[in-house]
Amino acid sequence: MRFVYLGPEATFTEQALLTVEEAVAGDRVPARSVPEALDAVRAGDADAALVPLENSIGGAVPITLDELIAGAPLMITREVVIPVEFVLGARADTAPTAIRTVAAHPQASTQCRNWLRAHLPDAEVTDVLSNSAAAIAAAAGEFDAAICAPLGATRYELAVLADKIADHSHAVTRFALVTRPATPPGPTGDDLTSLALIIRHDQVGALLTVLTELSVRGINLTRIESRPTGEALGRYVFFLDCAGHVAETRFGEALQGLRRVCAEVRFLGSYPRHRWTPGLDHPVPAPANLSDDAFAASASWVDRLRHGDY
Amino acid sequence: MRFVYLGPEATFTEQALLTVEEAVAGDRVPARSVPEALDAVRAGDADAALVPLENSIGGAVPITLDELIAGAPLMITREVVIPVEFVLGARADTAPTAIRTVAAHPQASTQCRNWLRAHLPDAEVTDVLSNSAAAIAAAAGEFDAAICAPLGATRYELAVLADKIADHSHAVTRFALVTRPATPPGPTGDDLTSLALIIRHDQVGALLTVLTELSVRGINLTRIESRPTGEALGRYVFFLDCAGHVAETRFGEALQGLRRVCAEVRFLGSYPRHRWTPGLDHPVPAPANLSDDAFAASASWVDRLRHGDY
Amino acid sequence: MRFVYLGPEATFTEQALLTVEEAVAGDRVPARSVPEALDAVRAGDADAALVPLENSIGGAVPITLDELIAGAPLMITREVVIPVEFVLGARADTAPTAIRTVAAHPQASTQCRNWLRAHLPDAEVTDVLSNSAAAIAAAAGEFDAAICAPLGATRYELAVLADKIADHSHAVTRFALVTRPATPPGPTGDDLTSLALIIRHDQVGALLTVLTELSVRGINLTRIESRPTGEALGRYVFFLDCAGHVAETRFGEALQGLRRVCAEVRFLGSYPRHRWTPGLDHPVPAPANLSDDAFAASASWVDRLRHGDY
Amino acid sequence: MRFVYLGPEATFTEQALLTVEEAVAGDRVPARSVPEALDAVRAGDADAALVPLENSIGGAVPITLDELIAGAPLMITREVVIPVEFVLGARADTAPTAIRTVAAHPQASTQCRNWLRAHLPDAEVTDVLSNSAAAIAAAAGEFDAAICAPLGATRYELAVLADKIADHSHAVTRFALVTRPATPPGPTGDDLTSLALIIRHDQVGALLTVLTELSVRGINLTRIESRPTGEALGRYVFFLDCAGHVAETRFGEALQGLRRVCAEVRFLGSYPRHRWTPGLDHPVPAPANLSDDAFAASASWVDRLRHGDY
Repeated sequence: MRFVYLGPEATFTEQALLTVEEAVAGDRVPARSVPEALDAVRAGDADAALVPLENSIGGAVPITLDELIAGAPLMITREVVIPVEFVLGARADTAPTAIRTVAAHPQASTQCRNWLRAHLPDAEVTDVLSNSAAAIAAAAGEFDAAICAPLGATRYELAVLADKIADHSHAVTRFALVTRPATPPGPTGDDLTSLALIIRHDQVGALLTVLTELSVRGINLTRIESRPTGEALGRYVFFLDCAGHVAETRFGEALQGLRRVCAEVRFLGSYPRHRWTPGLDHPVPAPANLSDDAFAASASWVDRLRHGDY
Repeated sequence: MRFVYLGPEATFTEQALLTVEEAVAGDRVPARSVPEALDAVRAGDADAALVPLENSIGGAVPITLDELIAGAPLMITREVVIPVEFVLGARADTAPTAIRTVAAHPQASTQCRNWLRAHLPDAEVTDVLSNSAAAIAAAAGEFDAAICAPLGATRYELAVLADKIADHSHAVTRFALVTRPATPPGPTGDDLTSLALIIRHDQVGALLTVLTELSVRGINLTRIESRPTGEALGRYVFFLDCAGHVAETRFGEALQGLRRVCAEVRFLGSYPRHRWTPGLDHPVPAPANLSDDAFAASASWVDRLRHGDY
Repeated sequence: MRFVYLGPEATFTEQALLTVEEAVAGDRVPARSVPEALDAVRAGDADAALVPLENSIGGAVPITLDELIAGAPLMITREVVIPVEFVLGARADTAPTAIRTVAAHPQASTQCRNWLRAHLPDAEVTDVLSNSAAAIAAAAGEFDAAICAPLGATRYELAVLADKIADHSHAVTRFALVTRPATPPGPTGDDLTSLALIIRHDQVGALLTVLTELSVRGINLTRIESRPTGEALGRYVFFLDCAGHVAETRFGEALQGLRRVCAEVRFLGSYPRHRWTPGLDHPVPAPANLSDDAFAASASWVDRLRHGDY
Repeated sequence: MRFVYLGPEATFTEQALLTVEEAVAGDRVPARSVPEALDAVRAGDADAALVPLENSIGGAVPITLDELIAGAPLMITREVVIPVEFVLGARADTAPTAIRTVAAHPQASTQCRNWLRAHLPDAEVTDVLSNSAAAIAAAAGEFDAAICAPLGATRYELAVLADKIADHSHAVTRFALVTRPATPPGPTGDDLTSLALIIRHDQVGALLTVLTELSVRGINLTRIESRPTGEALGRYVFFLDCAGHVAETRFGEALQGLRRVCAEVRFLGSYPRHRWTPGLDHPVPAPANLSDDAFAASASWVDRLRHGDY
């Protein structure tokens, strides 16, 4: 199997990909951007792409959200959550007091904002496209230092001037493994389903309607993001992560409901939830009256009513 | 076909039954009470029973509601709504000023309350079991006068001392034609479905939950009645009349939802709505996104999602 | 103080009135009917009236509901719940096998229906206006027997042929003590508020709207009854009993909301809840975030926002 | 009055600030970043700051959202919406075919993504901190070209190689004028109120609860954004823009409700809505039953109920 990931090499994304067994055994090719990675899957040049979805500090990765809904349908088959610890790397001969310019990916500089204010208040921070690009640019002398992953410092032979410089310990990044549409991986009892919705703007309380379609079927929302549709201010695509799996009856019924009340619904995959803090973060099973069995029993009851057999 | 109706003869119920074609052609047998009428159907002694459900002035007929849910399942296949106009009947030799006692069915005296206060403030009104019983009792001299149907006055040879004595003109009574469970009459696009629900008392906002299951599927409630379950104050059976038919997909889905959230749901039939004021009282078609076609389209979409075919 | 109650003497209503201290000390006058009792209060001829509201078996007492909203405003200041145990009384010389006619109040015969079917299947049951009227009529020889209160049998010297003949043991009747409008009795932390609502018929989901106004303020509904408005089938007055007191901030806010969304709201009183099964039936205190203090804190916060003082 | 704005000079932000009368007459000082601009207001070094809130293409400006809730309270007193049209600027001697590197603010490159793919597929796009920084860097020869505002090209003497290069015409950016807390500008009948909420995570359906608090008072949501709180994945701050003004009674009541059901509510200002397409984009007045008068009438009614005066 051929995997593409948001490159360059030696970033958190490569590190996340290496937690996927099939990827360790398969080909792993860096892409220059999220669009390039996803387009490689759409074109059939790769079987799957690993791209960042969100970070517990920096928030959503807008380009990923935008690209997931921009072209041919894609499907998330797996989420990977890994801890994110940044270092400040510099060439070996750089004195910490001499740092005037720092290269950093915007998510990285966002997460190290307080550290930067405290320790390098006068340094100019320049956005670059990746943590690796920051390391490479610092190694090349284009900047005095780089915020990067530990792996990036090692790979590009930078000295670590400071480690764990992120403002929040326990920061994590969540990645999505994306394929072309296929039968989703089977339900595990602890799954997420990702959706993109465009609500009808002639409806009062459209978002309330959407949430009601979910809550009536006992489906919890774990995340909601909005992105502009580009038409005008006030028009949004909503990205929802919901607890549950498309194969569950109740989830199928909720999806049908969303399809009927929304202007557009794009299914973005059902996949096992990655519980990154085992023991702390328990799945909540659906109540008995919302199980597939409860749905089957109630459907069979309605069927009997329709035929006078009760 | 053999029909039983709440007797005795010459009441509004018989008049209502005569609007049912099959009953005109079939046997019509009066029953002494609503329980007797319904039990005749349960026992197979009659094919259908016509019993009063509610009156636009006096409200629900509690005995009918209680008996519909007390024994083996029954099903309403038709509603009949007829105008109710009362007369005060008395033996030919009775002077209006000499009336001291009046026999009346409680629903009748309720509906003529103001008239009675104004014209017979000192008369003692005695409840009897039917409008006919009132007429018969007056004819037999047990009471000075009777509130009854015009047909009752005619049949039992009473003089009409006053007609249209009901406080509200335009009063109507609604009757139900009840059979044993069978495939309901097919949907007409303007149907009602009657249900009896017992809600779970360990749930906060149980009634809100019930109404939400309906409103999410766009189903309007045309009537809600509560009757005690008999266990304790505060425990009720709710009788709901909903616009729609069990054969409609959305209605089936709503019924499934009610079955899952309620302690008990008893289906009491789907039947054409009787529009008694033609031209005034229009059916409201379901919105396009809640049609059977919309449901089928969304179900097929979910099915494709489940198989990666989108 | 002068009390009027639904008479005649020696009924459950008189027994209920005797649980009210002020009534024991005051005047107690029976009325011939619920309207007469309430009109005596409206006219100032009595300070308070005790009338039946509902029975755990027979359900609501429609005449009381209808009369509460028919004229000048009235207010419930107290509820009284008492157990209801019926006896079959007859003149001393009546053989049980000779009983052909039974006098009973409709609520009484409803509650003894199974007993009557089992023990007096062929007896004709005649509705009379009260349990006492039944006892008096039996004592006078108009009927062979009466269903009445034990007190009625004693007072009118009937032999008790059978006692505890109600189909359900534990049956209770709930009475309302009604006065002219005044400042309601102060909140006790376990109160009920009674309301009558007419919903707007041009609004979809009007009842859902009403329930949402309550649930948003954490107010539970303990009872809902519907009565026809008399205009047409499908037009109802809803009678609601809600947990809470008009003096509570959250309740005031909910009432304001109901007033804005309903065509009409009639306040029928806030009064202490009568817990008739002590130890079993606990009050549920309002959550902390809905206390008067929480409301005051949030109101003061909004006030500060309005003045830039935050 | 002293105004600070997200600099450097000659960006869309300066252009937006020049639409504010008081700013034309006052001092205007560029800040190096959104945090610097907002901190200048917090510290009293400036009276107001103009910062970008969102763009109809690129979406929210996360740094602004994060900084609005990070320190001492601030308040939005005005929104400014202006059209955004980008140009590709280069030094006069640059041949279009020779462009290998492009400097651009990330929002700018996001909005010109398709144009860049089509016309400069091989160019490396580097993120810089502002549109002006891009123009300056191109003028300085650090990059072959810049995506910038027309004003930036003029000011820094770049040739416009292509104009209106944004993928969507009609793109707009929305800016906020931010001050220290004060009495908000008075209601105009067409206002927005911005809020930041942290919901309780032990509550099922917390977001549904929030939306219900708004919808019960007839308040529409025009925008919802989520930003991570930084504690863990799945914990968000929600930024809401709601139609209405804190001075309106119904809005105050809704705010009180949010305060009670949320873990935290930060008020971010009530201000007139900037309708940027006059004639197309009409304000929707609140329904009559939600006007201040309706609230006052219902409050006075409840007050009368509490004193028996009805």
